[in-house]
Amino acid sequence: MSVLIVGSLAYDSVTSPAGSVRDELGGSATYGGLASQFHLNRFGYGAAALVGVVGADFRDEDRAVLASSGLDLSGLEIADGATFRWEGEYVGNMAEAMTHATHLNVFEHFKPQVPLALREPTVLFCSNLHPLIQRDVIEQTSARRLVMLDSMNLWIDIARDALLDIMRMVDLVVINDGEARMLAEDDNLVRAIRALKNLTGVATLVVKRGEHGVLALHGDELIALPAFPTAEVVDPTGCGDTFAGTLAACLGGSTGHVGLSELREALMLATVTSSFTLESFGTAALRTLDVDVFDQRWRAYRTMLGL
Amino acid sequence: MSVLIVGSLAYDSVTSPAGSVRDELGGSATYGGLASQFHLNRFGYGAAALVGVVGADFRDEDRAVLASSGLDLSGLEIADGATFRWEGEYVGNMAEAMTHATHLNVFEHFKPQVPLALREPTVLFCSNLHPLIQRDVIEQTSARRLVMLDSMNLWIDIARDALLDIMRMVDLVVINDGEARMLAEDDNLVRAIRALKNLTGVATLVVKRGEHGVLALHGDELIALPAFPTAEVVDPTGCGDTFAGTLAACLGGSTGHVGLSELREALMLATVTSSFTLESFGTAALRTLDVDVFDQRWRAYRTMLGL
Repeated sequence: MSVLIVGSLAYDSVTSPAGSVRDELGGSATYGGLASQFHLNRFGYGAAALVGVVGADFRDEDRAVLASSGLDLSGLEIADGATFRWEGEYVGNMAEAMTHATHLNVFEHFKPQVPLALREPTVLFCSNLHPLIQRDVIEQTSARRLVMLDSMNLWIDIARDALLDIMRMVDLVVINDGEARMLAEDDNLVRAIRALKNLTGVATLVVKRGEHGVLALHGDELIALPAFPTAEVVDPTGCGDTFAGTLAACLGGSTGHVGLSELREALMLATVTSSFTLESFGTAALRTLDVDVFDQRWRAYRTMLGL
Repeated sequence: MSVLIVGSLAYDSVTSPAGSVRDELGGSATYGGLASQFHLNRFGYGAAALVGVVGADFRDEDRAVLASSGLDLSGLEIADGATFRWEGEYVGNMAEAMTHATHLNVFEHFKPQVPLALREPTVLFCSNLHPLIQRDVIEQTSARRLVMLDSMNLWIDIARDALLDIMRMVDLVVINDGEARMLAEDDNLVRAIRALKNLTGVATLVVKRGEHGVLALHGDELIALPAFPTAEVVDPTGCGDTFAGTLAACLGGSTGHVGLSELREALMLATVTSSFTLESFGTAALRTLDVDVFDQRWRAYRTMLGL
């Protein structure tokens, strides 16, 4: 069982009410990969591989963080130039980041090349990238169980049709609530996801709602789950990627079509995993997450839901 | 088993993306009472009574709506003057009402007089009123199981200390998320409700989050539940009162301290009941709610939660 994650690796500079950090290891593939690998390690089998690009300035210790988690870095390209940098800030209830600066650097001309050995993963997760690059990755690979896709408002703005096209090619789409409303052009989230389902035929739509949990449409069935209520919100960066990376790992352990209860369990695991990412700047909480600590919160979450 | 609800009866004029209505029967006691009585009728026992005031212009057909539901109106005062009127509007995702006009009319000098026969209800629910008036009601009555309280941002603004004082006198407080954050002066909802609990010692805090469901703190235990996802949002007016009225009815059927699973079940029933109120202007959906239709959605909600 293997997960392939294609996306960004970045250095993030983040300010929140809890403080600020500069050039912290981040990026969608980083968070998604660490989350996937945490669960694969927890299950005791499987590996996750990253396909992405970093610059010559990418620090050895950051590479070591990724490698020591168990991630396969054979698809990590090192290009001339600087690593992708993002600067953002969270205020108030920290629901949304204000972006102060985006320097794409080597990410600007990223053309993912999936190594031959990684082309038949159990699960392919295309995290947030231009839809045409996502398409290119999907065409290079042949996922054995599931193809997952994340996106962002930028692509809805500038590449809406390409995004809808690629949603038709995948099994599971993860987006946030604002993006779902924007893409469907409907303020009502239930109508919005039903419209997206009709428009694309995608089997599973997962809408991340941040502190408000998750709403999913799987076939005709809705699943709604609350977030794990946490008092320690330090930095929400990477929560959505942690969520999706966990889904990727937790949906790879079976075969055939994804079942409703399998999906519900994976969404619950993703909810609990992303609650840790919140609690530190960068990947600190995620990469040092202890299985016993995770299991304790996992039990607390199930109890909270009456399960 | 009996529920006593003290609060407002009003004529509401509401505009939403779905249309607009003028002088629709509304008010916190109206919604709370209809919801309570619906559940008491569904259980097959118990009555809910309203204490409130209307003007000479209160329509016979509106009185008939309340009476025919089974509500005890012996505490309904008719005063010289006009019934309380509220005018508001919902836009966009309809999360919050914009108030265009509030005419308190006879409600301005409302001093609740609880009839002798109603002074020992199983559950007393003081819906949104000035905290000193709520205190007066609590002092007139002796609830056998539970005293519940709702409030609003206005009282946090102008009577914060009185509100905190009265929260110390009751068993269960229902407020919305913005109010909880405002009252605790903390943007993080989990910290906010823990702070309110420490500040007041109240056994159960229920935070209504509209389309995002509910978060409750019962002793040291958190309960989080998603809203019932509905595609038909016509008019959210009265949803919070429907929610609280349902809680009042569903927490009256047992004795002793409220248990965690009893509270969870009541919160789930309240969630499903208020999803109906959303789907029409005014009380139309609530007052015509069929038990079979309710039970069907109740089962769907439980299924959605994996229960």
